[in-house]
Amino acid sequence: MARTELKPNEWMEFPILARQMHAQMSHEGILIASLDAAGRLNPMTIGWGVFGWIWNRPIFTILVRPSRYTYDCIEATGDFTVNVQPADRRDIVDFCGTISGRDHDKMSELELTSLPSTHISSPGIAECPIIFECNVVHLTDVVPPELPESIKSEYYPQGDFHRIYFGQVLNVSVEKSFLEES
Amino acid sequence: MARTELKPNEWMEFPILARQMHAQMSHEGILIASLDAAGRLNPMTIGWGVFGWIWNRPIFTILVRPSRYTYDCIEATGDFTVNVQPADRRDIVDFCGTISGRDHDKMSELELTSLPSTHISSPGIAECPIIFECNVVHLTDVVPPELPESIKSEYYPQGDFHRIYFGQVLNVSVEKSFLEES
Repeated sequence: MARTELKPNEWMEFPILARQMHAQMSHEGILIASLDAAGRLNPMTIGWGVFGWIWNRPIFTILVRPSRYTYDCIEATGDFTVNVQPADRRDIVDFCGTISGRDHDKMSELELTSLPSTHISSPGIAECPIIFECNVVHLTDVVPPELPESIKSEYYPQGDFHRIYFGQVLNVSVEKSFLEES
Repeated sequence: MARTELKPNEWMEFPILARQMHAQMSHEGILIASLDAAGRLNPMTIGWGVFGWIWNRPIFTILVRPSRYTYDCIEATGDFTVNVQPADRRDIVDFCGTISGRDHDKMSELELTSLPSTHISSPGIAECPIIFECNVVHLTDVVPPELPESIKSEYYPQGDFHRIYFGQVLNVSVEKSFLEES
């Protein structure tokens, strides 16, 4: 896969990137990936995330429940990659959305390849046409009393309220053909 | 201005909308607007915001300092509109970024028109080609110890840490010609 690096704020200039992120995330999910204590890359499917611009920095904000293996990983590394899988590999998000990295080496079981990052410790997934390298610059937790009952009962019946990670985008790696198509 | 309404999640399908939001916000700023206690619409310029998908809802997240007049407005109404000004009206964001609604009726001084919202109490700004109606479904505050010193010293020398509002997008009103151009 021939890749090109975009400057952190440059990706916002590519309509196709923003659209692809928003559409794919809300439709089938995308992947965040972070290193675990054993140095293994652990991908997890997310269907939620918000991105844009805060503190004059490009920011990708994700929510992770403390019960997730990914939570331990990000707490330790302080960084993560956001990976948008190829259109024909929906199996990746299906698998990574149901299996825990505590019991499985998801990268090896899916025969996926780590791609070392340029700015952070956690690698990306080489098979993914879009990879954002994100360094956590802020975190806060969902505040239960500030949620409507409808959200609380639907998404937090057992508590396990999300931690909100604000990741500063330090590099964006994109498959060249993806930009050319757009 | 001929307008059309998009379903809350439909706007993500329009690359031009996501791009326009990201680019315009980071380059010159956009406007949030909310009603004050006197029922006056108060627009404020923001250069920061993140948007996407959380709790299976389209979410627009903004940061507002407690010292701002807009803070009082949103605390009271629990809603706000996000307005993207026309390309030739940069004067609006310049004005609304420097003047406080405590001392000025910005809408009238700028000769702008309120556009009643379909789902929330705060109107939009009729002259803006893109308007998001947002209902606050969650809020939390920036946590000072969880910020790097560089951000703390640059953006919070006097404290005044932002409140983070998560607004569920309930309606998107777009100038028809804007979609056609794209």
